[in-house]
Amino acid sequence: MKLASLKDGRDGQLIIVSRDLSKAADASDIVPTLQAALDDWDLYAPQLAARYEMLNAEKVDSFDFDQTACHSPLPRAYTWMDGSAYLNHVELVRKARDAEVPESFYSDPLMYQGGSDSFIGPRDPIVAADEAYGIDMEAEITVITDDVPMGVSVKDAEKHIKLIMLVNDVSLRGLIPNELRKGFGFVQGKASSAFSPVAVTPDELGDAWGEGTIDLPLLVDYNGKPFGKANVKQDMTFNMSELVAHAAKTRDLSAGAIIGSGTVSNKFEGGEGKKIEDGGVGYSCIAEIRMIEKIQTGEFITPFMRFGDTVGIEMNDAEGKSIFGRIENVVEKYEGPEA
Amino acid sequence: MKLASLKDGRDGQLIIVSRDLSKAADASDIVPTLQAALDDWDLYAPQLAARYEMLNAEKVDSFDFDQTACHSPLPRAYTWMDGSAYLNHVELVRKARDAEVPESFYSDPLMYQGGSDSFIGPRDPIVAADEAYGIDMEAEITVITDDVPMGVSVKDAEKHIKLIMLVNDVSLRGLIPNELRKGFGFVQGKASSAFSPVAVTPDELGDAWGEGTIDLPLLVDYNGKPFGKANVKQDMTFNMSELVAHAAKTRDLSAGAIIGSGTVSNKFEGGEGKKIEDGGVGYSCIAEIRMIEKIQTGEFITPFMRFGDTVGIEMNDAEGKSIFGRIENVVEKYEGPEA
Repeated sequence: MKLASLKDGRDGQLIIVSRDLSKAADASDIVPTLQAALDDWDLYAPQLAARYEMLNAEKVDSFDFDQTACHSPLPRAYTWMDGSAYLNHVELVRKARDAEVPESFYSDPLMYQGGSDSFIGPRDPIVAADEAYGIDMEAEITVITDDVPMGVSVKDAEKHIKLIMLVNDVSLRGLIPNELRKGFGFVQGKASSAFSPVAVTPDELGDAWGEGTIDLPLLVDYNGKPFGKANVKQDMTFNMSELVAHAAKTRDLSAGAIIGSGTVSNKFEGGEGKKIEDGGVGYSCIAEIRMIEKIQTGEFITPFMRFGDTVGIEMNDAEGKSIFGRIENVVEKYEGPEA
Repeated sequence: MKLASLKDGRDGQLIIVSRDLSKAADASDIVPTLQAALDDWDLYAPQLAARYEMLNAEKVDSFDFDQTACHSPLPRAYTWMDGSAYLNHVELVRKARDAEVPESFYSDPLMYQGGSDSFIGPRDPIVAADEAYGIDMEAEITVITDDVPMGVSVKDAEKHIKLIMLVNDVSLRGLIPNELRKGFGFVQGKASSAFSPVAVTPDELGDAWGEGTIDLPLLVDYNGKPFGKANVKQDMTFNMSELVAHAAKTRDLSAGAIIGSGTVSNKFEGGEGKKIEDGGVGYSCIAEIRMIEKIQTGEFITPFMRFGDTVGIEMNDAEGKSIFGRIENVVEKYEGPEA
């Protein structure tokens, strides 16, 4: 089943989207919002799934699905915790900061708690006051859980994964080193994240979903050019079930918790990767390519995002059809709060 | 005005509490939950305030207010960000870990993003799987904001403070050093927090509220004995307006955001403090007294909380009357998730 939230109030209006993303049907008569559906998933999921089948069979009133009318599937959430499952990314980003990767990172996931009260929509601009913040995209996959009990096992954690989305976890690289030094995580170093227009149940991924991950490339384009196509499953040190279990070690997670994979990154020629135009799989964030440049030339060359730059994030199935719809964010200058 | 949430479903049932905490009146006919009230505060606050005045005048149907029937005023929230406004606490805790306090901490607040999807109630047990986690209370004040625009000034931030609560920000000291080393903040090092039964508007504090803080002692008792009575305003390096502005630097905060002060701590005789029975103001967490013990005797003496230990947190007005009601949490062993 595929679900989305039309922009409407603080929590959006729940709609069901056809498998091919062409049509949509209202679902707010079943349950008004995705959060409310997740709050009582066992009750609502079968009703939503039944309408989804009717929508695909063109047996229910529908309208053209407009991705640009969507908010993130959960416009605000009670939890957004983002792991760093791709140690290659961590190794490169740390190298770029002249920092070591501790051995424990390979058995104990990095995870931070992100701002979840004001996500932007999948097609909304990234607003930032200053290009000097070092604005960067991070293309990732995420899962939404139902209620997860404290101390859940990795095996049981997978059963709590109800929906899957993509995310652009916008990072402000210039503000991150100071926050890392403080050790308390990111408060200012992350702007509001944008999620894919559509959240899908794991079965929509067919054989590509397994072992808590997705065996498909995550497509990133930047200012109209292919930028990344790293495979999500490859080089993933911790799968999504492991990340959910990590998040729930010392407290319950409530329905609607979003857990992220961290920036997808494939090792290539010693981990340094290669641009797509040079035959590689490219990158899911700018920080990585800057690191390669530093290693190869001694200088950072590619700038972080500037006002007007646009990033797109999408994932296609084996037939080349978009699964989650497209995230597309342009960077805009923030002119400051109204009085 | 004083508001509380009776335990009911995921978000509680909004009630209005009399100034003396003796009586309560239903408010769910005005707006069902505190989150919904905050989502449209300008609309609902005047209606709630009108009923509050009638309740205090005994002119509305009421019932005895039962603090034990309350959940935290926001049983779940979209944001819970906790500062560390008391550098004395940070200095002592860092000293206890053999870590330095960087100079920047005196101008750039420490703040972490906490789990906000599964708060416990003010009288609920703290459940933890293992005493070895180093279970500790942290007594703090918190504010709830309405929508705060990105980049808000400190001056404007104060206008966004709509409600004030106390919190027991339960910490798992044994898990924190590893997470601090990782730099990504606390995911496992904090258990679910408990807030005071009652949230109050700033005017309820009278002259004690000013400059974004409260000029009253925060009372902590531990296993029935007075443990702390540090003044909230004294030695506070960053006030609540400054902490709200810090939290909102690079993104909007949405209505219902909870911002915390960090563990209240007063300097005393060089910052080391003194127990209440020795004529001091005591401590708002166990980590501090352990640090003093280490300095004075070379050993940590007071253990962290064990199963069966109970902490109480409260604040009285100048006449000795409880303002927010009482947080009281006993530590219980967690027996593991159901299958």
